[in-house]
Amino acid sequence: MRQGYQSWVFPSKPVILASSAIGGPFEAKGPLGEDFDITHGDLMIGQDSWEKAEKVLLEEACDKALEKAGLQREQIHVLLAGDLMNQIITSSFSARTLGIPYLGLFGACSTAMEGLALGALLVESGASDYVIAATGSHNGAAEKQYRYPTEYGGQKPPTAQWTVTGAGAAVIGKQGSGLQITAATIGKIVDMGLSDPFNMGAAMAPAALSTIETHFRDLQLPHDHYDLVVTGDLGKVGHAILSELLPQHQVAIPLERYIDCGKLVYGDHPAVWSGGSGCGCVATVTYGHLFRRMRAGEWKRILVIATGALLSPISYQQGESIPCIAHAVAIEAPPAEEG
Amino acid sequence: MRQGYQSWVFPSKPVILASSAIGGPFEAKGPLGEDFDITHGDLMIGQDSWEKAEKVLLEEACDKALEKAGLQREQIHVLLAGDLMNQIITSSFSARTLGIPYLGLFGACSTAMEGLALGALLVESGASDYVIAATGSHNGAAEKQYRYPTEYGGQKPPTAQWTVTGAGAAVIGKQGSGLQITAATIGKIVDMGLSDPFNMGAAMAPAALSTIETHFRDLQLPHDHYDLVVTGDLGKVGHAILSELLPQHQVAIPLERYIDCGKLVYGDHPAVWSGGSGCGCVATVTYGHLFRRMRAGEWKRILVIATGALLSPISYQQGESIPCIAHAVAIEAPPAEEG
Repeated sequence: MRQGYQSWVFPSKPVILASSAIGGPFEAKGPLGEDFDITHGDLMIGQDSWEKAEKVLLEEACDKALEKAGLQREQIHVLLAGDLMNQIITSSFSARTLGIPYLGLFGACSTAMEGLALGALLVESGASDYVIAATGSHNGAAEKQYRYPTEYGGQKPPTAQWTVTGAGAAVIGKQGSGLQITAATIGKIVDMGLSDPFNMGAAMAPAALSTIETHFRDLQLPHDHYDLVVTGDLGKVGHAILSELLPQHQVAIPLERYIDCGKLVYGDHPAVWSGGSGCGCVATVTYGHLFRRMRAGEWKRILVIATGALLSPISYQQGESIPCIAHAVAIEAPPAEEG
Repeated sequence: MRQGYQSWVFPSKPVILASSAIGGPFEAKGPLGEDFDITHGDLMIGQDSWEKAEKVLLEEACDKALEKAGLQREQIHVLLAGDLMNQIITSSFSARTLGIPYLGLFGACSTAMEGLALGALLVESGASDYVIAATGSHNGAAEKQYRYPTEYGGQKPPTAQWTVTGAGAAVIGKQGSGLQITAATIGKIVDMGLSDPFNMGAAMAPAALSTIETHFRDLQLPHDHYDLVVTGDLGKVGHAILSELLPQHQVAIPLERYIDCGKLVYGDHPAVWSGGSGCGCVATVTYGHLFRRMRAGEWKRILVIATGALLSPISYQQGESIPCIAHAVAIEAPPAEEG
């Protein structure tokens, strides 16, 4: 199954039986509003704390994906989930509600593809028949934990990103109809010495580059193999940096095929600075928007590279730079049935 | 590979090529002091913060295990690591130092067996040739993050546990000589409504019971199959509770074969209340003490059940109870060579 040093290929092509995207009020009004399965008009999602609201988003994402797959919670062998909250409480409390055997993950925004890659491995290896990979974030909860109280109204530089309120889930199984997971590349930490938590796109772009380079080298693929190469979430700043780094490093991905989830989710809305971020960004854009368009036949093969800035407020306060990572998963639309 | 609903069996029996245990000053003076590979006389480990000290412990654990296995960092395909710090910074910063492709995990103290189980799966499935599973904790860092400033001198009830300052690592490979991983059981969240973070043994004991019951049922093993059944870290309080729950639930494990890492690590020292806890407790006791005695021929088959209390200070402050989980891994000494 291993190919090269950091990559896995999945000969059985585990199937994404269904996926889901749940969004908050701001996300609902964005350019991808139609791609969510459920959107909420209330940022509190009827709860009395942002943390509890985030948990409801994740639970809804899992239940909606299961409903679309026609499966019950009891049929799922493992839930692979993680989030941005300290001690990933969103995922653990959701795992309590769902009652599914649970493996907690943490990779900041890279958690989405960490979970999808491990989920594909579990199914490919026969360790599980069905798994669900899920992650999410909530703008209010993330601001409160990582930055200043929202009410303080702290100014941010134009390189900052806006944490998405949303969650996404994907149900993976051995057989059935749906998009297929063909390969994954597990990232190494890349840390270029940047330490500004308001410019994570710049910090994470080199980690994305490292994983992309490794993926093509390990799998010995031509650089134009994918119809779409998607990072999440570098935002406008990180997308521009990676667009420069790729040709500099002789990675000849056609740049018109390279997009970023953080750029897509809010379009050109001026309030979000460099774009969207958070576990919910790559998860909702990939499991909602991108997978819908793949199912509609728009793209045949995509590579999603989820990037994570693995800092904490403590590490930042102690003067540390930001260790970054990126995990990549390759997804394919099944061949059209012959008539 | 799957057996029953929550368990995996590993037909190739991935080999623990080497393991390591690193301890702090208090652990060095405990009854297991001789079982550590390295102990430190200084709680700061020469660093300027407890968090940085914890990182050094984890890095030392990985490097010592690699040295004992005769492998270089570059030969390891995946590092599976997690810890108690917010955003698992100990693991992520160690992954930066080590330069090994990295999957971040979180399961509080259950992380040790979550990593060992996933590591065995990676090797069994052919996704990796060599992996390293590692975790650790630091008393000062955990107290600061989860509870009161140490200088405040807050009193604790006798049900409280003492976070171990230490780290452990295990290198797993497909072939070679060493202890073998034969099976694993992935836990579900169990939450009996307890919400006292100073009595985690009581909160976690039912999660351990659930996973133990499931393990024996999934694998259809007699309850006296293992020479030793080890929980980590229920402490004295949790050990006593589980010792009552097992017979009540018709799990006929001979109770003289049931021990707990949190009880072992400090013996009867009065300052630690109910016993040791933290990711570093189950990791150092298992990878140091228990594995040494297995290698010495004392036990042939053991089952290690690592329990995790998946709370955060925020979830506790918001009035939530403590979701708990336990993951189990079965480990066997290889048959004695015929002479």
